Amino acid sequence: MAIDYQSLAVKGVQALSPYQPGKPISELARELGLDSSEIVKLASNENPLGPSKKAIAAAESALTDLCLYPDGNGFDLKQKLSTRLGVGADQITLGNGSNDVLEVIARCFAGADSEIVFSQYAFAVYPLVTQAIGAKAVAVPARAWGHDLDAMAAAVTEHTRLVFVANPNNPTGTVNSSSAIEAFLGKIPEDVLVVLDEAYCEYMVGEEDPDGVSLLTRFPNLIVCRTFSKAWGLAALRVGYSVSSPAIADILNRVRQPFNVSSVALAAATAVLDDEDYLQRSREANTSGLKQLELAFDQMGLRYIPSSGNFVAVEVGPQAMDVYQALLAHGVIVRPVAGYGMPNHLRVSVGLPEQNEQFIDALSKALAAAGQGA
Amino acid sequence: MAIDYQSLAVKGVQALSPYQPGKPISELARELGLDSSEIVKLASNENPLGPSKKAIAAAESALTDLCLYPDGNGFDLKQKLSTRLGVGADQITLGNGSNDVLEVIARCFAGADSEIVFSQYAFAVYPLVTQAIGAKAVAVPARAWGHDLDAMAAAVTEHTRLVFVANPNNPTGTVNSSSAIEAFLGKIPEDVLVVLDEAYCEYMVGEEDPDGVSLLTRFPNLIVCRTFSKAWGLAALRVGYSVSSPAIADILNRVRQPFNVSSVALAAATAVLDDEDYLQRSREANTSGLKQLELAFDQMGLRYIPSSGNFVAVEVGPQAMDVYQALLAHGVIVRPVAGYGMPNHLRVSVGLPEQNEQFIDALSKALAAAGQGA
Repeated sequence: MAIDYQSLAVKGVQALSPYQPGKPISELARELGLDSSEIVKLASNENPLGPSKKAIAAAESALTDLCLYPDGNGFDLKQKLSTRLGVGADQITLGNGSNDVLEVIARCFAGADSEIVFSQYAFAVYPLVTQAIGAKAVAVPARAWGHDLDAMAAAVTEHTRLVFVANPNNPTGTVNSSSAIEAFLGKIPEDVLVVLDEAYCEYMVGEEDPDGVSLLTRFPNLIVCRTFSKAWGLAALRVGYSVSSPAIADILNRVRQPFNVSSVALAAATAVLDDEDYLQRSREANTSGLKQLELAFDQMGLRYIPSSGNFVAVEVGPQAMDVYQALLAHGVIVRPVAGYGMPNHLRVSVGLPEQNEQFIDALSKALAAAGQGA
Repeated sequence: MAIDYQSLAVKGVQALSPYQPGKPISELARELGLDSSEIVKLASNENPLGPSKKAIAAAESALTDLCLYPDGNGFDLKQKLSTRLGVGADQITLGNGSNDVLEVIARCFAGADSEIVFSQYAFAVYPLVTQAIGAKAVAVPARAWGHDLDAMAAAVTEHTRLVFVANPNNPTGTVNSSSAIEAFLGKIPEDVLVVLDEAYCEYMVGEEDPDGVSLLTRFPNLIVCRTFSKAWGLAALRVGYSVSSPAIADILNRVRQPFNVSSVALAAATAVLDDEDYLQRSREANTSGLKQLELAFDQMGLRYIPSSGNFVAVEVGPQAMDVYQALLAHGVIVRPVAGYGMPNHLRVSVGLPEQNEQFIDALSKALAAAGQGA
């Protein structure tokens, strides 16, 4: 009598579909019989500049100690973040990417009888962690592809334990201003935690920059999450963090795995924070790359969602999956977002100028083939 | 009206004490005003040989791609493990250390109404993950410091969803033979999952080696966990894995974080599997180091628990914490195990010959100072 092991899993897990990452370059290269170097991947919002030299040097130095466990407290990295952000080291929780921190937050503060509020079209990890713990997901309809903060505040009930706010949001690139976030926080009861996911915040430039960290002293129920995977260029190493009140950080640090960030990741992240020039170049490359993509979309008559991230969601119509496949055949990997409820869009990450160009060329051909060209 | 955020945490988390790692070398160096190189740390069961050159080279090659996300499926590493272990790649679940896999297993298959069975004196992560999900921990009294498998089988009830068996066990170093494990599995209902944690199995030498992987075809409820942190010398990078039926692996892979293992870790682990010579040297250094420690304990009239791991628990009496502190003052870090219910023991990891010697010298002095010397 064979056992159905899926039926033994806890309820939320039984129906869980795993996160769908961007198609790996190596996989497409195998399928097309191409060399990996001929393929352009603009599917995972990765930093196209290549890593900071300071980060590489620090990572390399850490390789001599591969036999030793990492510093589970991340002393050096927390010290540096503490100084940079003007918060106490005891307010910081390190994670194996910010994904880890987001998951730990949900597991600490929400259970099967909880509701977790987030926006339609928001980052896929929010519904995944919600379902894994068996909590109830409350997806609030978006407004113009962005978070409708008023509606989100109104969706909070006595069962709500957490609200996830992505700012800027992935995959739409929409952003809410500091004053809007502040007004929103003012409406949320103090016993409901608000997770402000600022994974893309380093790309924001201008006086209206949202900066959740500056709001922490006034809103003790706020947790700000950030990552080294985007503008800091360390996606391979998995480092993210949250900043919160010390009391909340204490809880998170009990539940995170004691050695959740590798020594190489700690070393590289600590070093990259000294590379302000790298961050500046990341921002500039992104700003000009976004303009390049937007100009091309304008010329092709394609609508897109104005983005504050390092990616843009472009509307290619109901044949988006055909366009995606046609792009693959041209050696360009972008991200379908039908899983986000956006079947007419594709999300493309901002690449280097020549990568953006290769994508634009391929897109023209793909649209022409799909009978939708300009 | 200030909110007590601890009271908002889910029930199991509220009372959780975090895992206590070994004291970091850098911390003791700061405290004693010593250089880190003067301190001997034998507290975290780390491989004293230093890393495999093949692993370092592979890790170094991976540094050029720090901006890119890891291969979330770990294709290359799974292929190599699959060949080495004679199992399908679809039976493998990769983790951020085996700690990650142990936690994911508990979260997938146990909830607040579940019982999880493990042995007294077993690895600290089992009660931690049990408490974090709010399940009931059933700690079965040990027999001669080792797992009493008969009693553990008898402790399984209709509420039991998981049994953790550490083989060899940390911190006692005790081991159960293959035939004992097999007999035990024969007594466990098929709908109760048995997690056989073989983190130290590569140190076992001899015909009686327990090898859980060889039992998988006969016991579909078995999950074998292993790690690259010990004999393979990659603790810094956080790579572990489980081998199970494909059906169980499918569940685990839904819940693990999509990029839970870094690119550098994947590269180094894949490469080290080709370094059979390194594994052999790890084993030999461990066997001779264990003998060195045991001989010294015999000469000092100290009892110890015969160990099949890369560490040994030595009985120093009720002043164990004083002895631990005295060792620190001599620049030697070992691990107190009072938290495991072993207040008279200290656990010392097997070091290089000169490190073991430094520890033995310090221990003699520490015991003499505590009035307990030979």
